[in-house]
Amino acid sequence: MAMAEFMRRLAAAAARETLPRFRAAGAVANKYAVGFDPVTEADREAERVIRELIRAEFPDDGILGEEHGGEKQDSHRIWVIDPIDGTRAFISGVPVWGTLVGLTVDGRAVCGMMSQPFTGELYFGTEEGAFYEGPGGARRLSTRQLPGLGDATLFTTTPALFAGELRDRYDRLEKAVRLARYGTDCYGFAMVAAGHADLAVDAGLQSYDIVGLIPVIERAGGVVTTWDGGPAEKGGDIIAAATPDMHAQALAAIRG
Amino acid sequence: MAMAEFMRRLAAAAARETLPRFRAAGAVANKYAVGFDPVTEADREAERVIRELIRAEFPDDGILGEEHGGEKQDSHRIWVIDPIDGTRAFISGVPVWGTLVGLTVDGRAVCGMMSQPFTGELYFGTEEGAFYEGPGGARRLSTRQLPGLGDATLFTTTPALFAGELRDRYDRLEKAVRLARYGTDCYGFAMVAAGHADLAVDAGLQSYDIVGLIPVIERAGGVVTTWDGGPAEKGGDIIAAATPDMHAQALAAIRG
Repeated sequence: MAMAEFMRRLAAAAARETLPRFRAAGAVANKYAVGFDPVTEADREAERVIRELIRAEFPDDGILGEEHGGEKQDSHRIWVIDPIDGTRAFISGVPVWGTLVGLTVDGRAVCGMMSQPFTGELYFGTEEGAFYEGPGGARRLSTRQLPGLGDATLFTTTPALFAGELRDRYDRLEKAVRLARYGTDCYGFAMVAAGHADLAVDAGLQSYDIVGLIPVIERAGGVVTTWDGGPAEKGGDIIAAATPDMHAQALAAIRG
Repeated sequence: MAMAEFMRRLAAAAARETLPRFRAAGAVANKYAVGFDPVTEADREAERVIRELIRAEFPDDGILGEEHGGEKQDSHRIWVIDPIDGTRAFISGVPVWGTLVGLTVDGRAVCGMMSQPFTGELYFGTEEGAFYEGPGGARRLSTRQLPGLGDATLFTTTPALFAGELRDRYDRLEKAVRLARYGTDCYGFAMVAAGHADLAVDAGLQSYDIVGLIPVIERAGGVVTTWDGGPAEKGGDIIAAATPDMHAQALAAIRG
């Protein structure tokens, strides 16, 4: 099966588990509704069906998921899954959460996807390039080419992620850009890939929070690294930029 | 025409102007693309078609809009329009902006709507109640009934809205709730009406930022006032709460 078609299947299978439970989640905040936890159910069930599809199609590959842990971790090919990235958005009714799946080969993310089933959006990256499918039609993704950091739009989940010295570094970056937007989780990274924004930063990410997004952004022309310029695949403090030059300018601002 | 049907027509007419320009907006951030400003075009054109529908259906009513100002302001019935609430979300590609239209009679908001055309959502309030139409089907809206402020989910556009003493008051509220989410503009208010969140606050709003939302929240069981408990129709610092009790608890936290 072509990888693009496999990404579509993963997105559709996950959507069947997440979407019916989205906005059934009001009661999550109600501690009196014991035993009713739609976001946890959606997380577990979506990861379960994603794992089934991977095992059926790529039986020798390893899998690492947020909910169900690792299997075949000695394989040089490892699929990395976050069934619902942005659980706080999920429980608040806002469709900026996403299902993330990525494949690493020898530790390097080579293909991946983010899907948002309420809006019907799929962003994916394969060896063929980076693509969007959803409202407005299908198209190839390419990042935006703005010359200066002072023109940039920056996404982050919340400044509260950044503590101590990290906060100072983040604040320097936010002051240097034109527009900062909060509350987006994985959706902000997809907006960088799609050319609607220039930078996305988050701190303390896990591998499964970012591996699915790396190929989408890179194949669209962007750069994803840790804040000190290292590989992003293992997570940590992560920055995605629309271009190598924007990435360099942002790292310089972070360093101060 | 029944008011619900009129709301659907307003939403559809506005969508034809806003949606084709959404995500064509990447170039807005590019100051070199002189004369190409999709968000301003979308704002102006959406308000123009909304005004045309109102004039045709209610020729004696007054109209107040963000883009094209006031007409027949001596009428006791005034329609209040914000064609794109959340222009920063619009230019960043994130579908949490909305088209707001409300009707005031003798200064009191009696019906109104928020539509998000990318997701296909319409939230509206009339004398018949508050309703949702969109993905997942149509349903009557009712707010969530959580007992305590400590369980609440709070939405705001950004804490940066709040300066000086206002920031202290906001910070007290944020500390008192369970979960605070940023970046939502009008969408957070719709989430309160729909029972996915419990509080939405913003500062320095204009009349057109809030009039369309008041009837949606009130008819769903919520309360919308200024931060000192006065009428919300003229804008200012606004708080929406899921229940009268949640509203009282939030105002007490704001007062400190």
